[in-house]
Amino acid sequence: MTYRAPISEFRFLFDHVVGFSQVSETDRFAEATPETVEAVLSEAGKLCEDMLAPLQRAGDLHPARLENGVVRTSPGYDEGYRAIAEGGWIAIAADPEYGGMGLPMTMTSAVNEMMSSACLSLQLAPLMTQGQIEALEHHATDEIKALYLPKLIAGEWMGTMNLTEPQAGSDVGALTTKATPNGDGTYAITGQKIYISWGDNDFTENVCHLVLARLPDAVPGTKGISLFLVPKRIPDANGIPGVANSLKVVSLEHKMGLHGSPTAVMQYDGATGWLIGKENDGMRAMFTMMNNARLGVGIQGIGVAEGAYQHALAYAEGRKQGRTENNSITDHADVRRMLATMKADTFAARAIALANAVAIDMETATGHADWSARAALLTPITKAFGSDTGIDVASTGVQVHGGMGFIEETGAAQYSRDVRVAAIYEGTNGIQSMDLVGRKLMDGGEAAYRLLDEMEAEAEAARAKRPDLVDPVWQACETLRETTEWMVAHGAQDRFAGSVPYLRGFARVLGAHFHLRAALADPDGPHDRLAAFYIHRILPEHVGLLAHARQGAEDLFAVSVDDLAA
Amino acid sequence: MTYRAPISEFRFLFDHVVGFSQVSETDRFAEATPETVEAVLSEAGKLCEDMLAPLQRAGDLHPARLENGVVRTSPGYDEGYRAIAEGGWIAIAADPEYGGMGLPMTMTSAVNEMMSSACLSLQLAPLMTQGQIEALEHHATDEIKALYLPKLIAGEWMGTMNLTEPQAGSDVGALTTKATPNGDGTYAITGQKIYISWGDNDFTENVCHLVLARLPDAVPGTKGISLFLVPKRIPDANGIPGVANSLKVVSLEHKMGLHGSPTAVMQYDGATGWLIGKENDGMRAMFTMMNNARLGVGIQGIGVAEGAYQHALAYAEGRKQGRTENNSITDHADVRRMLATMKADTFAARAIALANAVAIDMETATGHADWSARAALLTPITKAFGSDTGIDVASTGVQVHGGMGFIEETGAAQYSRDVRVAAIYEGTNGIQSMDLVGRKLMDGGEAAYRLLDEMEAEAEAARAKRPDLVDPVWQACETLRETTEWMVAHGAQDRFAGSVPYLRGFARVLGAHFHLRAALADPDGPHDRLAAFYIHRILPEHVGLLAHARQGAEDLFAVSVDDLAA
Repeated sequence: MTYRAPISEFRFLFDHVVGFSQVSETDRFAEATPETVEAVLSEAGKLCEDMLAPLQRAGDLHPARLENGVVRTSPGYDEGYRAIAEGGWIAIAADPEYGGMGLPMTMTSAVNEMMSSACLSLQLAPLMTQGQIEALEHHATDEIKALYLPKLIAGEWMGTMNLTEPQAGSDVGALTTKATPNGDGTYAITGQKIYISWGDNDFTENVCHLVLARLPDAVPGTKGISLFLVPKRIPDANGIPGVANSLKVVSLEHKMGLHGSPTAVMQYDGATGWLIGKENDGMRAMFTMMNNARLGVGIQGIGVAEGAYQHALAYAEGRKQGRTENNSITDHADVRRMLATMKADTFAARAIALANAVAIDMETATGHADWSARAALLTPITKAFGSDTGIDVASTGVQVHGGMGFIEETGAAQYSRDVRVAAIYEGTNGIQSMDLVGRKLMDGGEAAYRLLDEMEAEAEAARAKRPDLVDPVWQACETLRETTEWMVAHGAQDRFAGSVPYLRGFARVLGAHFHLRAALADPDGPHDRLAAFYIHRILPEHVGLLAHARQGAEDLFAVSVDDLAA
Repeated sequence: MTYRAPISEFRFLFDHVVGFSQVSETDRFAEATPETVEAVLSEAGKLCEDMLAPLQRAGDLHPARLENGVVRTSPGYDEGYRAIAEGGWIAIAADPEYGGMGLPMTMTSAVNEMMSSACLSLQLAPLMTQGQIEALEHHATDEIKALYLPKLIAGEWMGTMNLTEPQAGSDVGALTTKATPNGDGTYAITGQKIYISWGDNDFTENVCHLVLARLPDAVPGTKGISLFLVPKRIPDANGIPGVANSLKVVSLEHKMGLHGSPTAVMQYDGATGWLIGKENDGMRAMFTMMNNARLGVGIQGIGVAEGAYQHALAYAEGRKQGRTENNSITDHADVRRMLATMKADTFAARAIALANAVAIDMETATGHADWSARAALLTPITKAFGSDTGIDVASTGVQVHGGMGFIEETGAAQYSRDVRVAAIYEGTNGIQSMDLVGRKLMDGGEAAYRLLDEMEAEAEAARAKRPDLVDPVWQACETLRETTEWMVAHGAQDRFAGSVPYLRGFARVLGAHFHLRAALADPDGPHDRLAAFYIHRILPEHVGLLAHARQGAEDLFAVSVDDLAA
């Protein structure tokens, strides 16, 4: 599988679509000049093309496995992770005090996307570590930071997230893992965690687990959860990993895809842990990590979409069929439709994700509540629409290949199998949608309306120039506004009954907004033509989605569980 | 994986939705009384539940493999195929003169669906054999029929279809396999064929290949193609398979799913074949087989949808989560939405497929051109919408399982992997859509308008009773009519540019028509509530799809191949 890093497309989006110049104009991110962006993306892109992309198929064919309690990773993953670490790509946004580069999340997002295109199962390792670094930066003591952050940032140690238990999936509050004070400031952690991505490996000298658990006197539910850092090997004061902690990998899962990523069942038997943040305040610290991870998982979807698109386009261009022998199947109308849809949807999802990252960077740089509200609003949309786009584009990639798509050697099927989990982990897309219509509209819709005001104002300003594109976008914004008003005016059950189509409809309309920007910045260019394709052909989907979103709960729950089983 | 055959649902559809009584009122199918239907479906359902469903996972874990030139099938498949054969289920529609039961295709379709739910990879074997039986019934000499049909119908021999070559996929006319007359009425067949489902097995005493090839003087393209029957072992006059023919399995494919079905590369080296039908008239004979197979593949999708739905519902009902400990996740709004969508879409696709089968039976029984036009119109819709529904429902089934959905042991992922090929084989869904807007509208839209007239007349008649359901259905029919008029008025490129969304939109509206019928037949019952869910929430998708369908080719081809690569 060859992969070409889409550097110039990132530059176009940074410069013309997602307003990255705002970020580089802040004091906090003054170093993120166009030259730095170009250098960082080119360097990371080269690593992804040359070093990581060739690992993708090896990871699928030779899954990580557990041998006598030791996780053996896929061939080449050791060297791959080292190369990521040596390039400094584990965490370019991390604090320079601990070895990071302090660069914007927007740039991290582009780098993460390229790594996801090249080899998703390996990219999950730095992604998990990034989330841990951010959680520690925000919530750990200076001592913990000094001990752990340099190792994590340098890639000498790896980080994991431990939330889920067999009886506590989306319902995190039901978890039962126990944390008992040892009397010396540490805690003894006991319990079982499942679905632990990169729960162990055979190439970093330590693995650091962030584990949600309950103190002995904790109240039930999410308010009685605390967060602990539990290293595989307990480091001494100099950061040398010593004694093995009381934890182990019980088993690895056999998964539909992402075979190169070891997904562990972890057992903690009185393992020594350090409290991160305050007692019973673990969910807050966890959300720092989760929000990072949710953006990251949306971007995984986009990365796979890009990889699967390039792969399908290369196949289609090489596939001669039909009467005119020189033409490839790209000249068949439906193949052209599939490829254009893949590209247009990838553009929309990428623009949303990068705009989300820009909002995070502006929040970091300015501390302004409007930016944090914007980031909070966009995060569930990025996660769900990014992962859904990855799944849809990869499936279309299989279809473009015809019969070859179903044959594993081709590689199209692997994209489809690997990315399927992105709609599930870090909060299913159903949970993302509930977050959007629940928590994210609890401001009475203020953040959503502010975004819609901007979208409509921009459309208005461009109306005279491009009525063919502006009219449908403006009308779609109005429908989204009315649906948002409906959501704000209705109770939780009614909102939840339409939450998934609402999120999808929101993303469709927001995607059109960014396509319009791109068209205006590239008149008569490729982005203009792709925007016309999206706005005239794909955007109309929002009508059905938003009509569904406004139906309320009654019709839905009228279909009883008995009816379902009838 | 447990599976319960949905016998009462089939009965409801036969009696109230697809007009099966018309079929049983004909002389040709007078034996298909309600008692016979009940007996046949119950008996076949029992086989599927008890014997076939347990094979599904074994086939996935232990793929068919090639050992020293011999295909070794998955554990239990031998017994499974024998049980299908002994029950008489290979071909219940086949001619009683040769051992069939002469029952309607509608009943075959229900039986095929149940077998597909239970074990798709094994069901593909009788499906291929059914297609061969039908091709021989229509096009073979009496001698060939007498020799081959009893063996195929009894399941002692198995049938395959050999169309595709490496350079000739959707473009069948490009095939190069040669047929040279031997001078004794037989032909020597030489060439390579790929993607041959059930290309060989280790449990039937013979395997009969229908092979498309070119005579020495044949013109290029599809008009120079002839069809040959090429048995693995050449039978003597008494039907005893003797000498091995000059053909072999070169290799088996490693596929995304359907591991239990051996997909072979076949090599013919001067193999002895018998001409079926006339010289250079192979495409016509092949289409007999293909049309049967297209209906059958749509039904495969529906079968997998039913299986995946039952599997997901059982999981959700057993999954306790949330504050009220007695409730399962079926009480979460988005889980209810997913399950109701799966059930409503499966209903729509099944009704379309069975209505298609009824049209085929009426064509057989009456010879009336209206019925054959109806069957021809519905076949691409059944194939594409049935397979897409299987893919979508199976993917939603994965999502209902949350994290467990990505773990192979759960079984949800297998439905998703297995059914993916249904959108590809027997003509990709893109090809189906081209068939719909091309060949099937070449009557100036007559068959489509006749169907729309019926749909609108029925809606009109029910308007006073159920305006809440009728108004949106009638409006959707009008939009479909306008879009059909647009298609008829435009040239091939414009039609092809919107063919896939047109087919999907057509299926959405047609599904609403059948849901409305079901609601009227079951007032205040489960079908009524499911119809309301579908019509209010899912049907609105047709707006975006049909808007896309009417965009024409200009916008689409404006996105150039250079733009795609930009």
